[in-house]
Amino acid sequence: MKLKVKDVKLSTGGPYVAILNEEDARKLDLYGSDRIKIKDLSIVINISRKIKKGQIGLFEEVLKKLSLKQKQTVVINPDRHPISLGYIKQKLKGKRLTKEKIDEIIKDIVKNRLTEAELSYFVSGCYIHGLSLKETVYLTRAIVDNSKQIKLDHRITLDKHSIGGIPGNRTTMIVVPIVASLGYTMIKTSSRSITSASGTSDTMETLANVELTNKKIISVVKKTNACMVWGGIMELASADDRLIKIERPLSLDPEGIMIASILSKKKAVNATHVLIDIPVGKTAKIRSLTRAKKLRKKFIKIGRKLGMKIRVVLTRGDQPIGNGIGPALEAIDVLDVLQGKGPKDLKNKSIALATMLLELAGVKKARKKVLDSLHSGKAYEKMKEIIQAQGKNINRLKLGKYFHSITARKSGIVHEINNKLISKIARIAGSPKEKGAGIYLNIHKHNKVKKGETLLTIYSENKNKLEYALNLYKQSEVIKIGPKK
Amino acid sequence: MKLKVKDVKLSTGGPYVAILNEEDARKLDLYGSDRIKIKDLSIVINISRKIKKGQIGLFEEVLKKLSLKQKQTVVINPDRHPISLGYIKQKLKGKRLTKEKIDEIIKDIVKNRLTEAELSYFVSGCYIHGLSLKETVYLTRAIVDNSKQIKLDHRITLDKHSIGGIPGNRTTMIVVPIVASLGYTMIKTSSRSITSASGTSDTMETLANVELTNKKIISVVKKTNACMVWGGIMELASADDRLIKIERPLSLDPEGIMIASILSKKKAVNATHVLIDIPVGKTAKIRSLTRAKKLRKKFIKIGRKLGMKIRVVLTRGDQPIGNGIGPALEAIDVLDVLQGKGPKDLKNKSIALATMLLELAGVKKARKKVLDSLHSGKAYEKMKEIIQAQGKNINRLKLGKYFHSITARKSGIVHEINNKLISKIARIAGSPKEKGAGIYLNIHKHNKVKKGETLLTIYSENKNKLEYALNLYKQSEVIKIGPKK
Repeated sequence: MKLKVKDVKLSTGGPYVAILNEEDARKLDLYGSDRIKIKDLSIVINISRKIKKGQIGLFEEVLKKLSLKQKQTVVINPDRHPISLGYIKQKLKGKRLTKEKIDEIIKDIVKNRLTEAELSYFVSGCYIHGLSLKETVYLTRAIVDNSKQIKLDHRITLDKHSIGGIPGNRTTMIVVPIVASLGYTMIKTSSRSITSASGTSDTMETLANVELTNKKIISVVKKTNACMVWGGIMELASADDRLIKIERPLSLDPEGIMIASILSKKKAVNATHVLIDIPVGKTAKIRSLTRAKKLRKKFIKIGRKLGMKIRVVLTRGDQPIGNGIGPALEAIDVLDVLQGKGPKDLKNKSIALATMLLELAGVKKARKKVLDSLHSGKAYEKMKEIIQAQGKNINRLKLGKYFHSITARKSGIVHEINNKLISKIARIAGSPKEKGAGIYLNIHKHNKVKKGETLLTIYSENKNKLEYALNLYKQSEVIKIGPKK
Repeated sequence: MKLKVKDVKLSTGGPYVAILNEEDARKLDLYGSDRIKIKDLSIVINISRKIKKGQIGLFEEVLKKLSLKQKQTVVINPDRHPISLGYIKQKLKGKRLTKEKIDEIIKDIVKNRLTEAELSYFVSGCYIHGLSLKETVYLTRAIVDNSKQIKLDHRITLDKHSIGGIPGNRTTMIVVPIVASLGYTMIKTSSRSITSASGTSDTMETLANVELTNKKIISVVKKTNACMVWGGIMELASADDRLIKIERPLSLDPEGIMIASILSKKKAVNATHVLIDIPVGKTAKIRSLTRAKKLRKKFIKIGRKLGMKIRVVLTRGDQPIGNGIGPALEAIDVLDVLQGKGPKDLKNKSIALATMLLELAGVKKARKKVLDSLHSGKAYEKMKEIIQAQGKNINRLKLGKYFHSITARKSGIVHEINNKLISKIARIAGSPKEKGAGIYLNIHKHNKVKKGETLLTIYSENKNKLEYALNLYKQSEVIKIGPKK
């Protein structure tokens, strides 16, 4: 059937989609979500009466891919559904998938051949039936094979990852300069925050450009041994990005996909030794020690199959790490620690993680070397080098001009700090989009506080947002203070 | 935030969708599939760089609902996700849902508040974990409560349904005029075919208009006791239609949703006594007797809870019923049977079903009455009345002008006729869109055939389609002929 192209002047943000008039669709026995072919491209169809008979509405992605323009004539033919749909159905039924089948699914995701509804079925299958160790390995490899990679000829490349959910916790920005100052390579890609107060990339961005091309990344690493960049721009693991997007509305996070998501990003930069930090706590992402231990085993086994040495450390996840929560506030903590000051908990955790990571790579006297680097100022110098190489950002450490301090209503001991509420309040105050928004925490768990003492200060760049953040604070129990237990 | 409306000149065919520029979305901390509110309407957002900063792209559904026009200014605010998403997640986790939760999901489906990806999660949950009897009842009721209904003040309204998968099998078009000629009411809504050769509506359409308004349906039924119309146009069970659409790409058909889908349509016309025909056979939809029996129990129990008396009959589903397959060919069979001629299997099955349906409603000497109606020509007269009342279609019984007969290559006994292949070949020949396309079957199972005898004739309105259909016939084993067993 020949149809005239109508540029609908929209993008789908992924899948190749065409819109047909109902009558034309009926002629070809096509229904919504069926496929057609134009040239060699398989395209999902929608049906809409807003498209005239004889026309085909095309989105930006298809127009670009096929170099088509408004009013050109195209020949369309019905096409089969992708065979990966059959495999997705098998997963939904609880069957184990082979390497070939998982490859096919991931290839189709990356090539934009599947609709969001179809992807949801895959996520559902993984969520309900789980993924076996083997399937997780296949999934990780498939994601890596279908994404851009950064390859340097280094014998050893170190990496680390913290499972999210703990406000503050910016150890990466301390561990990386320490390790790099000692001559080891870390090509650190991080995420931006989606639901937390700030991601490592959001915080790093207050100091340096984090949106680097792959070429630029390589040059930064060659110069400084390391980099700290946003993974999103690199098209590493783009299949993974699409899966995460589809998990959002129901906040699903199937374990197998989570593991593949983390490890594929390590594999894509050719990491050889990876330290994974799993904070465990009532308001952390991983809430039980049993689950954390199971997860540890899986990470190690899967890492081995992928040719990566992995060490997993379970850490306390019952409160924020550091004092600052929000990009600028966290960056200030990090720079302080690198200069021998700053919050002790952040400092100590960073030292411990850096030490374990080096030990994993067989470095002797790792702890001494880490402390030397930090105390001598070498790590701080390295941080400045990395910032310079990535492209320095200035004037982004200014805190929000609206702020309000909250004081203790009674004396006692801090029993609990709710991670989720802290994140939410910082977010409502404007973090991470407004770099100067967030929370400065004056206390930690088990601290003694006196009535009237400042517990925390909320910063915002906007008066209303500060108000909203304060309201949420007042309505909920963020910090529990009680008698000595 | 204030934005200027851009009419994207497209419809979504359901969900309320708005498109934001990435920068505007970030300002409000919104991501794809998040919700915004304009006035009182909750709208799903997409993000696209094809929409300029300060603009909001709106689809037809939103523009209409809010009476908005190009370049008007609207105020948008972030909105919560619908609470039904939480219930969908519970179902995905395997939890049983309460009446209130299922109501909320169905209400949100009908009100176009859920995306296709979100609906997929609901279908996945139902598919994997199943629906309990109670849940199926809630689902059926929720579908009915959220759809248009046809209410007549009749004490008794009869209905029947055949589970699909058997080519031919147009018993409805014989049972309805028989029952109506005896003074009983049947408000029969049927589907069009999606994957089979023809649906009852497609076949009935060769004789009469099947796309009637609800008002017109009531007047037809008042005049003739019955009607045979396409359910799709009546907006009965529109939640059900959306679920079926979402099941298509993976051909999922969760049992609970199937039962609710069938029974909601009966309940929506206030049926009191319903006969359900479940054909069982290797190439039918229901393949095992065990499953059919389980299904029977469920139908009866659920019917009772919905206030409908249900009888389920398991019939042989190992071959097509009647000789014609395809709209015109089937209609000819039907008219023949009503005039005392026609294929015996279709005639006998129709007599049996009509008898059982009347018995279910407490009619004495039902079989005799059925036979009287048929033999006296009263049923045929009633059929003509119904056709007249719905609006007669003429000249639509013409068979395709291209045809080809296939003869037996050897003598023997017919051991098997593959329902699925028969449907597929008829479809490729043009059925049901081309009313005269299809297959005329000369033989049935257990018939003796001689080499050279005609087995079937394929009809098409298009030479190429006939060719394609013949090719498929030659490539596959549609009819198995072997020695006497």
